[in-house]
Amino acid sequence: MRVRLAGICATDLELVKGYYPYTGVPGHEFVGEIVDAPQAPERIGERVVGEINAVCGACGTCHRGHPRHCEKRTVLGIVNRNGAFAEFVTLPLANLLRVSDHVPDEAAVFTEPLAAALEIRSQVPIGPTDRVLVIGAGRLGQLIARSLVPSGARIEAVARHDRHRDLLRAAGVQVIAEDELPSRAVDVAVEATGSASGFALAQRAVRPRGTIVLKSTYAGRLEIDAAPIVVDEITIVGSRCGDFAPALQMLEAGQIDPRDLIDSERPLGEALAAFEQAGRPGALKILLRP
Amino acid sequence: MRVRLAGICATDLELVKGYYPYTGVPGHEFVGEIVDAPQAPERIGERVVGEINAVCGACGTCHRGHPRHCEKRTVLGIVNRNGAFAEFVTLPLANLLRVSDHVPDEAAVFTEPLAAALEIRSQVPIGPTDRVLVIGAGRLGQLIARSLVPSGARIEAVARHDRHRDLLRAAGVQVIAEDELPSRAVDVAVEATGSASGFALAQRAVRPRGTIVLKSTYAGRLEIDAAPIVVDEITIVGSRCGDFAPALQMLEAGQIDPRDLIDSERPLGEALAAFEQAGRPGALKILLRP
Repeated sequence: MRVRLAGICATDLELVKGYYPYTGVPGHEFVGEIVDAPQAPERIGERVVGEINAVCGACGTCHRGHPRHCEKRTVLGIVNRNGAFAEFVTLPLANLLRVSDHVPDEAAVFTEPLAAALEIRSQVPIGPTDRVLVIGAGRLGQLIARSLVPSGARIEAVARHDRHRDLLRAAGVQVIAEDELPSRAVDVAVEATGSASGFALAQRAVRPRGTIVLKSTYAGRLEIDAAPIVVDEITIVGSRCGDFAPALQMLEAGQIDPRDLIDSERPLGEALAAFEQAGRPGALKILLRP
Repeated sequence: MRVRLAGICATDLELVKGYYPYTGVPGHEFVGEIVDAPQAPERIGERVVGEINAVCGACGTCHRGHPRHCEKRTVLGIVNRNGAFAEFVTLPLANLLRVSDHVPDEAAVFTEPLAAALEIRSQVPIGPTDRVLVIGAGRLGQLIARSLVPSGARIEAVARHDRHRDLLRAAGVQVIAEDELPSRAVDVAVEATGSASGFALAQRAVRPRGTIVLKSTYAGRLEIDAAPIVVDEITIVGSRCGDFAPALQMLEAGQIDPRDLIDSERPLGEALAAFEQAGRPGALKILLRP
């Protein structure tokens, strides 16, 4: 594929800091155009997004219905597969989903992080009687909060930046100050900061028998107060990638329009400056166009 | 009730060390006889076991179907309610389950810890195609392993003492050496040691998308490697108390006979020595008879 547009996410920032043992081209959020496909020449010209896990389809994990956890997988821009901060990128044809003409590149490029956000709803049942708290309202937190709104649940979020708060409110999410957080009250707390303090807030807010979702890249170890996890029978759910199809469908149906999360779009040649910009406190989505 | 027989568990040992802010008579595993019941004199003379959480029945948590998490609860020998290491003990009548005549005191006294063990199966679906690892084979670990055998799953356990290993094998549980632990292979790992090293073993053994059950009293904080929890989408489930009825039913049906876990039975007057004995490495159940 020729890369049309790519997005920078927190994982990319961690990668370049060296927190993962990856060497290669980063970038896993992209929209591209198929320019070569020897086994399916009829797909040349398609505008596509691409599921980032390239899997074997034959191992126990694949057979168990969790191909994104394939033990032999490569992951675009993360594990043994050069990523999308480049002019061209390759993935198996089976990974590529056609993007409808009416979805612009600037929305389609959010398919991967939106799929990751939606994964929460496939792991944890969330419905209209639930109360959900999202901790962290950056790039991913914003998408998580928006992806939860259609569940009908009461969605609240903690945000540190005025702009993040405005974006949340515009999306129908109630913004709560950190010192007004509910105590032992929410059914599900989504931790999207990747910090021990974020986890502590989640632990304080969740009700007995409630669920804490870990939805962030944790660098290093996390120290938790384990006794209340046992006494209150809390469930902690690690959550990483999600299915692309429902995310793309939401974008196509206009249920979510993520374009107000774009801070800026820069040419690929300015990638270093773009990474610097993406790493600033409060930064949202920085896009790279080759 | 007049206490007929009571058992010492790890929580009691933690309580007397001061790890919980409880002052009062400890003891929450017991079998007794109703000697006074002004509202139900017909129950006088019943031999009973007693659900240890005395709840309000009216709060949100009770209504949500989790009365054992009632925010106003007292807990026998643990929270604001004098326990069973005494001649007499009180509980609401609704908490008391009659014990069939053919179940001896020495088996009935295990109802509470067996209920706690069975709680795992009510929280995590475990069936014949699953592989389950139990880490820790002391008082609770033995009951956990036995309570899981009827699920049809492949049950394996790590044990540090020869006698624990023999007991596991006799119960149909496969014993594994620590250095031969499966890696990323088991569906469910039950951590019953209450230690960070036990948690690390569980994390190593569990497969992607698998479940770690925290089934122990953790004193203090637990440091975990959080990144793999997210990347492998592991679920961690805190697990405390369980329903008495199915536990008592298992004992009545003879599906589980826990009496080989009894180390000794001592008079209540020797409680201090009994606690000392229960705290020795490898000790199993010490009973107190008032």
